[in-house]
Amino acid sequence: MLTNYDRLLKGQVDEALTFIADRFEGYLAADPQLSFQMAAYVHGRLVLDVYGGPHMAADSLTVPYSTSKNTAGLVVGLLVQRGLLDLDAPVADWWPEFATGGKERVTGRQLFSHQAGLPETEPMLEWDELLDNRRAADRLAIMRPYWRPGSAFGYHAITIGNLADAAVQRTDGRTIHEFYEQELRRRIDTEFFLGLPDELDDRLVPLLPIVPPLGEAPAPTSYHPLRDVAFGPRPGKDVDLAGSEKSYRFGHPAGSATTTAHGVAKLLAGAVTGIGEADPILDAETVAVIGEQQVRGFDEVLGQHDRAHSIIFQKPSQQLAFGSARSFGHDGAMGALGCADPLTGVTFGYTIVRGPWPGGADPRAVRAAREIGMAGL
Amino acid sequence: MLTNYDRLLKGQVDEALTFIADRFEGYLAADPQLSFQMAAYVHGRLVLDVYGGPHMAADSLTVPYSTSKNTAGLVVGLLVQRGLLDLDAPVADWWPEFATGGKERVTGRQLFSHQAGLPETEPMLEWDELLDNRRAADRLAIMRPYWRPGSAFGYHAITIGNLADAAVQRTDGRTIHEFYEQELRRRIDTEFFLGLPDELDDRLVPLLPIVPPLGEAPAPTSYHPLRDVAFGPRPGKDVDLAGSEKSYRFGHPAGSATTTAHGVAKLLAGAVTGIGEADPILDAETVAVIGEQQVRGFDEVLGQHDRAHSIIFQKPSQQLAFGSARSFGHDGAMGALGCADPLTGVTFGYTIVRGPWPGGADPRAVRAAREIGMAGL
Amino acid sequence: MLTNYDRLLKGQVDEALTFIADRFEGYLAADPQLSFQMAAYVHGRLVLDVYGGPHMAADSLTVPYSTSKNTAGLVVGLLVQRGLLDLDAPVADWWPEFATGGKERVTGRQLFSHQAGLPETEPMLEWDELLDNRRAADRLAIMRPYWRPGSAFGYHAITIGNLADAAVQRTDGRTIHEFYEQELRRRIDTEFFLGLPDELDDRLVPLLPIVPPLGEAPAPTSYHPLRDVAFGPRPGKDVDLAGSEKSYRFGHPAGSATTTAHGVAKLLAGAVTGIGEADPILDAETVAVIGEQQVRGFDEVLGQHDRAHSIIFQKPSQQLAFGSARSFGHDGAMGALGCADPLTGVTFGYTIVRGPWPGGADPRAVRAAREIGMAGL
Repeated sequence: MLTNYDRLLKGQVDEALTFIADRFEGYLAADPQLSFQMAAYVHGRLVLDVYGGPHMAADSLTVPYSTSKNTAGLVVGLLVQRGLLDLDAPVADWWPEFATGGKERVTGRQLFSHQAGLPETEPMLEWDELLDNRRAADRLAIMRPYWRPGSAFGYHAITIGNLADAAVQRTDGRTIHEFYEQELRRRIDTEFFLGLPDELDDRLVPLLPIVPPLGEAPAPTSYHPLRDVAFGPRPGKDVDLAGSEKSYRFGHPAGSATTTAHGVAKLLAGAVTGIGEADPILDAETVAVIGEQQVRGFDEVLGQHDRAHSIIFQKPSQQLAFGSARSFGHDGAMGALGCADPLTGVTFGYTIVRGPWPGGADPRAVRAAREIGMAGL
Repeated sequence: MLTNYDRLLKGQVDEALTFIADRFEGYLAADPQLSFQMAAYVHGRLVLDVYGGPHMAADSLTVPYSTSKNTAGLVVGLLVQRGLLDLDAPVADWWPEFATGGKERVTGRQLFSHQAGLPETEPMLEWDELLDNRRAADRLAIMRPYWRPGSAFGYHAITIGNLADAAVQRTDGRTIHEFYEQELRRRIDTEFFLGLPDELDDRLVPLLPIVPPLGEAPAPTSYHPLRDVAFGPRPGKDVDLAGSEKSYRFGHPAGSATTTAHGVAKLLAGAVTGIGEADPILDAETVAVIGEQQVRGFDEVLGQHDRAHSIIFQKPSQQLAFGSARSFGHDGAMGALGCADPLTGVTFGYTIVRGPWPGGADPRAVRAAREIGMAGL
Repeated sequence: MLTNYDRLLKGQVDEALTFIADRFEGYLAADPQLSFQMAAYVHGRLVLDVYGGPHMAADSLTVPYSTSKNTAGLVVGLLVQRGLLDLDAPVADWWPEFATGGKERVTGRQLFSHQAGLPETEPMLEWDELLDNRRAADRLAIMRPYWRPGSAFGYHAITIGNLADAAVQRTDGRTIHEFYEQELRRRIDTEFFLGLPDELDDRLVPLLPIVPPLGEAPAPTSYHPLRDVAFGPRPGKDVDLAGSEKSYRFGHPAGSATTTAHGVAKLLAGAVTGIGEADPILDAETVAVIGEQQVRGFDEVLGQHDRAHSIIFQKPSQQLAFGSARSFGHDGAMGALGCADPLTGVTFGYTIVRGPWPGGADPRAVRAAREIGMAGL
């Protein structure tokens, strides 16, 4: 039963989740600049749709950084469901140019679970290439991997999106943008865009940079060989992934989609649980395939322990405990989160204008997503 | 040369191990409630058989929790030795119903080294199912694994016993209880029972709960997605794994056997080194097979680092340093320990009525097992 | 442009690297006993060749412990380049006696990336065997591995050298000493010897033991099962790996070569980048093969996290950050370091008479190697 909430926090909330709304009301009271949206479905029924703070309206759109990857993960799932992509076949079966540099036997499963050693090209992709999937794919195809494929995994922060486009183009024929728009976004009727339409420009809210707490300096980052490879300064004309029109107009499937929190939750509901009486776009078998954990442990690129991935998506971990062992999703560097839990039926979205230090999913949102699953709705 | 020890500690001890007996005498003096049994063989010769404390007699029987798994590990070894079980063949070869949900190619080696992603069913096994191997196996067979088999490992705290029974039933024809009783326990003549015989009921000593030290609260357990799956409250009529007659009468091969410490050491001696002049039941090749480390690292279920397994058994680690790199065994949540070291010939058993905080093998026993191996007997 | 440096530090340095020379001048001023050599090439051009301290002359030779393994790594690369060794074929193809004890399918790739579970024999190799490759290989061939090959990795501190010799003898016919001397050392004309020639004896400088800082006791070493296996006291007549003539005259390819720092850098330059206008001995494909990371994570023998290996060589890690993700090399227990970075063209050598506590590559040298790569020479 949805009720209206109209204090600092505004929107609709199922009565059973009022405790979560109240907690976020408290966050808004304590921090006058906090501005976010949060939404959730349970088994396809909207149970939460709220927003608050001076920088967010109900329909504000933001760039959720890597939460964008939820689009690419669902797209790859749909390719699998339609029999266009066999995750256990060599990538070279559908991408002949890929069969070089020791990648001859790399499978789709390895490629889309961050095991192929292609977190970047060498030298780094320029901005113009990054925002042009064909050019990025051509450069990635000829790369020698940064580690023996299958022997390790490491976050392909950006390239996973270009690689997902290659899979769509070479198996379906459309671009990932066309495929996603026609097969997922429009069918589900959700405002989670790969490429912001011109006419929505005035709803776009720019992100604000994350700021360390007063007196806290950035932790001295210990050196890890691949971190610079993947996160060093990118060559080419200065582009900001979230802030530059060139980037969000393109809509990079790994990092510069545009969405509301509701848009994230609705996309995942339409694909994973179905909305209302409608069947989900992905069948249960496909949901199991894209949610099955492929790797867990030390991330070769981030230099962090206890990271885990299924197909493109993140799996929950101690630091990112958004749901049950069956759940999957993706957070964003600036605080956003999208996740789905087939066990509890929860699909969840969260966007924020200025995420908390030091970045990654806002822990307040992670906790909310987990608690909605435990509420037994 | 065994001598009698008759102080707070009572029993027999090889002169070369008096230093260990003296240390445990000290423990008894310092803690008037401490009650344990400890026994060891070296190359099949009894070198230590002692007990002490108000709750333990020489022949007291207790439920050693997961130390029970020593029975299942030896059983699987004997299946391999007899050519009934090929660890590298798909489980589906001997269990056709298992070939579903992505488990089609899972091997016995993966299944019995905690790699198959089946630490529980979904929803959790009820008590009645857990204590009925056929029903438990039927539910496990149709499960979709909690991770891609082979990509990770995690402790199958209970189900490993049900799965071991499935292997026995489907390759030998008997139940694991029948097979163990006839092929191992009776031949070795040891008091380590899978299913406590009625006539021994008055020797059974109940365990006492582990208690945190005064002033020490339980550590705030960090969330790990699969920990709840495996260790959450189990549905069904309230049963206590160690304390309920239904459980110890059944004798779950993963957790509710009944034994003396001497029974543990003697079982392992009879199987691994042979007792006196007798040949061991397992030949050296089989001992190597069941003792060969299959996995080490992060345990997906426990959320702990530096865990390691061979076939069903635990391998030693920094936290559980019971012997050489060739040793194997299994501890129990309430403090018990059983282990064998083919390099030194040691087989060791330990039971305790109330184990030390926070649980798992009593570190005093772990140290004793290791030191007996170093004594060069 | 090389300029002379003639203060406490002596030698030649490219102007762009003066900041490094100045920093080492400071180290010499602060510690009157510090005695080291350091040298580097960039794309085959000498850019640094300096030494300092009371125990080192420009041409002093020392035993660099495991930095010796740079010889063995290049040798294995040359076997691959010549088609004599297929890393993905079973070792048993070229070494039939090896096909026992569960090693039947172990590949060269596993063997030379410390995955085969042969960090020692059981019982341990005696000194006489260690310094006789045929005897050591005979004992290793019949071993049952210490873990399931491929399921883990652990540093083969000494045996990797004996195993490399087996590969040379059984595919090329020569010993590793003959092959290295004829195909690498002489062609490159570098003073990095496997087996110190008699006539250079008076240039040999003995190492001094590493000493803990005043008041700092050795950390209590936590137990790890395989550490004792690999690093316990070695049986046989007392030999010191670096100090005994028997050892350095033999020149163990895993630990008792003899060299100058310049010799290390020049060997790697001749093999990896070419010196001056000459082609390198290893082609780019082979360099990629020997530098490709095969394993990263927990080292089963050392009990340490974030260790990584390519073929024989170490890969950089947080603790050993000597270059880019493409770099490879090997440090020595007493402070030495050799490494090459195909991305930046740097090859680097460092030797030291008394390394800093607690051993392994001198962090000052690791930093210098990395900075030379960043200097853009």
